[in-house]
Amino acid sequence: MTRVFRITVTYDGTDFAGWQVQPGERTVQGMLEASAERINGSPMRVMGSGRTDAGVHAEGQVARFETTRDLDEARVPHALNAYLPPDVVVTHAVRVDPGFHPIGDARSKHYRYSVRVGEFHDPLARRFALHSERAPNVQLMRYAAESLRGTHDFAPFEKVGSPRSSTIRTLTQLDVDPCGPYIYMHFVGTGFLYGMARNLAGTLMRVGGGVLAPEAISAGLKAGDRAIAGPCLPAHGLCLMNVDYEEVMR
Amino acid sequence: MTRVFRITVTYDGTDFAGWQVQPGERTVQGMLEASAERINGSPMRVMGSGRTDAGVHAEGQVARFETTRDLDEARVPHALNAYLPPDVVVTHAVRVDPGFHPIGDARSKHYRYSVRVGEFHDPLARRFALHSERAPNVQLMRYAAESLRGTHDFAPFEKVGSPRSSTIRTLTQLDVDPCGPYIYMHFVGTGFLYGMARNLAGTLMRVGGGVLAPEAISAGLKAGDRAIAGPCLPAHGLCLMNVDYEEVMR
Repeated sequence: MTRVFRITVTYDGTDFAGWQVQPGERTVQGMLEASAERINGSPMRVMGSGRTDAGVHAEGQVARFETTRDLDEARVPHALNAYLPPDVVVTHAVRVDPGFHPIGDARSKHYRYSVRVGEFHDPLARRFALHSERAPNVQLMRYAAESLRGTHDFAPFEKVGSPRSSTIRTLTQLDVDPCGPYIYMHFVGTGFLYGMARNLAGTLMRVGGGVLAPEAISAGLKAGDRAIAGPCLPAHGLCLMNVDYEEVMR
Repeated sequence: MTRVFRITVTYDGTDFAGWQVQPGERTVQGMLEASAERINGSPMRVMGSGRTDAGVHAEGQVARFETTRDLDEARVPHALNAYLPPDVVVTHAVRVDPGFHPIGDARSKHYRYSVRVGEFHDPLARRFALHSERAPNVQLMRYAAESLRGTHDFAPFEKVGSPRSSTIRTLTQLDVDPCGPYIYMHFVGTGFLYGMARNLAGTLMRVGGGVLAPEAISAGLKAGDRAIAGPCLPAHGLCLMNVDYEEVMR
């Protein structure tokens, strides 16, 4: 009998060519599938809640793991971790209905973009936060965030050339949270277009730097004006914190 | 005219064979001296407040930098950083008397040892904190810390084979500070024997794990008993936070 589990995965994206399996590349999905194969004795797809780009980190990526072995929830993380490198760890597993779909069943995702402000870059933070010499104006960023929250056509914030049936998405939260030398931008939404979180972070940093007026965001969103967007900030500042699902039914 | 500066250096120790120059090895001092040579046009020693072992990090290592160039305090960090790799950064410089000696003039040092408690190791924290599956008892650790504070013969906590004229040192602070999943051990002292901070951290973790009674520390210190010491914890959890000097006179 095949058992299906929803697993939670943490990874340091620095040394990965992203989540998705690609021939000849070191990927998170590739590592998980290699581990799953060791456990099952045959190849088995490990589907994630979504791809993360090369260099993007995750505290709480979620994926579907199937096994024909007699493993219970408490054993699954240990079984998978036994064959994983130190930059990927499975931290949790819950048994779910075989119909579980990690993309279709996701209710919302939480991304965090981290910026560290300082005259010099910090070697101890360089893998996980973008360095900014100038402190952005957090009040302006928060004002712009108000216009971005809610349901909008986020087409201006999508990477060009991403085919999607609809570019309308809902941001349920967008918070700008300064903490010591760090500025964290939290994005929670029902779905994200390709490159959207890093593009929104870049837009907010432009506002915070006084380059773009916060009032321009609202007008630009309505007009679908790409001039308000980006730049798309570097991958290493982004972390997928959590993916939210309905309560498990068995 | 030669100008002398006291510089503050931050580094991620992961990819270094420690502070001290060694032939054929990638060291922090080696990187700084290579940069100083680029600036001065000739080789110049960059002496630190002390060596840190391979893998040990620093937020605030201090060193002596000399230059024959017409550089002021504000320019020195930028000049040195221009030739440094991303895992070492000079964050501050202050011009000092040519007699400045980074070892002899240091009044105290602050080391922090970081432990992260959790069922699984955290890929995002693995370079900077020791992973512990079990949560140690912080109250027991604090009780043991009381016996270690002050002036003692710390010979039991020294790495065997380190020649020193005296093994008496003073710990002015030793705090055990839990913060979320982390436990930070802060050691502030007028001087540290070789391996002492990591050895003390290992001793406190043994106490916190219930393996060593806190009362044994005081008796063991008086008797010079090595049985109370260590183990010496891994280098990656240790960070030299700060070195304190007398106010600058010019």
